[in-house]
Amino acid sequence: MAYTIGVDLGGTNIKIGLFADRQRLIDQHWTPTPAKAPPAQTLQAITAGIQAMLAQHPGDLTAIGLGIPGLVDAQRGISMFSPNFPLWQDVPVGAVLHKEFGVPVRIDNDVRVNTIGEWRLGAGQGESNLVMLTIGTGLGAGVVVDGHLLRGATNSAGEIGHMNMFRHGRPCNCGSAGCLSRYVSAVGIVQTYREKRAALDLPAVAAATPKTIQVAAEAGEAAAIATYQAAGTLLGFGLTNIVNMYNPAVIIIGGGVAGAGDWLLRPARQVVADHALAIPGRACRIVTAQLGNTAGMCGAAQLVRKESVPR
Amino acid sequence: MAYTIGVDLGGTNIKIGLFADRQRLIDQHWTPTPAKAPPAQTLQAITAGIQAMLAQHPGDLTAIGLGIPGLVDAQRGISMFSPNFPLWQDVPVGAVLHKEFGVPVRIDNDVRVNTIGEWRLGAGQGESNLVMLTIGTGLGAGVVVDGHLLRGATNSAGEIGHMNMFRHGRPCNCGSAGCLSRYVSAVGIVQTYREKRAALDLPAVAAATPKTIQVAAEAGEAAAIATYQAAGTLLGFGLTNIVNMYNPAVIIIGGGVAGAGDWLLRPARQVVADHALAIPGRACRIVTAQLGNTAGMCGAAQLVRKESVPR
Repeated sequence: MAYTIGVDLGGTNIKIGLFADRQRLIDQHWTPTPAKAPPAQTLQAITAGIQAMLAQHPGDLTAIGLGIPGLVDAQRGISMFSPNFPLWQDVPVGAVLHKEFGVPVRIDNDVRVNTIGEWRLGAGQGESNLVMLTIGTGLGAGVVVDGHLLRGATNSAGEIGHMNMFRHGRPCNCGSAGCLSRYVSAVGIVQTYREKRAALDLPAVAAATPKTIQVAAEAGEAAAIATYQAAGTLLGFGLTNIVNMYNPAVIIIGGGVAGAGDWLLRPARQVVADHALAIPGRACRIVTAQLGNTAGMCGAAQLVRKESVPR
Repeated sequence: MAYTIGVDLGGTNIKIGLFADRQRLIDQHWTPTPAKAPPAQTLQAITAGIQAMLAQHPGDLTAIGLGIPGLVDAQRGISMFSPNFPLWQDVPVGAVLHKEFGVPVRIDNDVRVNTIGEWRLGAGQGESNLVMLTIGTGLGAGVVVDGHLLRGATNSAGEIGHMNMFRHGRPCNCGSAGCLSRYVSAVGIVQTYREKRAALDLPAVAAATPKTIQVAAEAGEAAAIATYQAAGTLLGFGLTNIVNMYNPAVIIIGGGVAGAGDWLLRPARQVVADHALAIPGRACRIVTAQLGNTAGMCGAAQLVRKESVPR
């Protein structure tokens, strides 16, 4: 049996997937990420995890792919900087794993890898134009146009979370204000809920999350319903700009906040129908992601493709 | 001598350029476009213009490229629909000229062709990531990411003029409101000037244009200065979104409104410096176009490239 390994290196867990033909997830192994330890310890945990997986599934390993948060030099297989790993700088992930396993190793940024996962094995299958939005604590995005995953001059194409929506809006940690992610991410939705309740002279709810707000909305609470209406509407204007600027055939919404489903997507779809340019607007479906927390492993296993096996 | 012909089919003029090695503009011939006549007459004018040019410059014609406004089927060489030519529908431009001259003929949308011109022979030379904005009566844009000119699912990637900047802004003929082009195009700048003068209880200026407003600004007129400050600032937020979403190494500003130069670009650059993400923001130059009204001919002559000569 010929296997590919796809690794999703997250701040919390290392997820290792074993794939047949790069397509079929046969087994997965999750282990906690020693995020605050020196990089060698994290690489050791990855190596041990892959070895354990291969011991259980005898066969030929053909390639390893990894999705890693932060700045990645995909060409040279180096993880340059990662906000999740404080001690992590210019770590030669590709070289270390290639030396250990003797197969081609490819790495890329986690957001791009998630996008590849949904593109090749999830909600974007068969499409050449798609945008994958991951809405969680923040908002990340990967963009495919004409069959090509956009990178840009400094590898930062697709920073949709920092689309300016208001000239004098909520301050963003990017240094600007009024960025889309400040309103539609988990943090943004919780802030809007606080504001909506305050406007109704209701006390703040401790430990509110998009999920608890959704439950409140389902129970008919006005502030919660208004919160999703506001977030979904502004998301719709962000999606309108995505449609007009990238012209995707499908926009895939993933991440924890996507769990709100139609509470978020119904108003968003309505805005796109009313405000996007007619032809690209009608050509674009807005759907939720299919692969959940396996998207990273699935995408990583796709990184080493026939046409791109390194020299 | 081996020549390539590049044709810029505009609503007012047909511009025919003769190029050596697809690079060097040797001669050009402009003739009025019979825009309201049947397509055969326009094709006849193009054919006659090319023939006259070739008669003056004996040599081998190797290819013809054309930039055409509106919806184009580049694959099949068909101009499907053009707002500038009322009688123009599904016109087989490629087949007609191929039959006449027996060389490969390529056509594409005029905005994309202008972008290719500035990319290959103008302000974008040597770059793989660039955005070309043409600001005139309206706002058109072409986008190159990772060396690839974006098309998208319905050939409308790069509709930057319809970026939503205000939820309840000026109505746009696209059916939405608050679109960027409503504020930074010639029409938008003139409207802002009218509003600024009205706010100062000054009478409207008949036949104001971006140029007359610029002259007034240079003479120290407060309303004119405020107009360019407002237009340049909002353009800066539009450019901020372009930087964050496409990550270009250079944004090229062309079209009539670009003639305002620093009146428009100084405030725009300041906003980008303050609001774009730091790394892609610092990596992006904002410059004016170099080719002026020859960009279309230059880009058209580049359409037939060695690697893409049709079967």
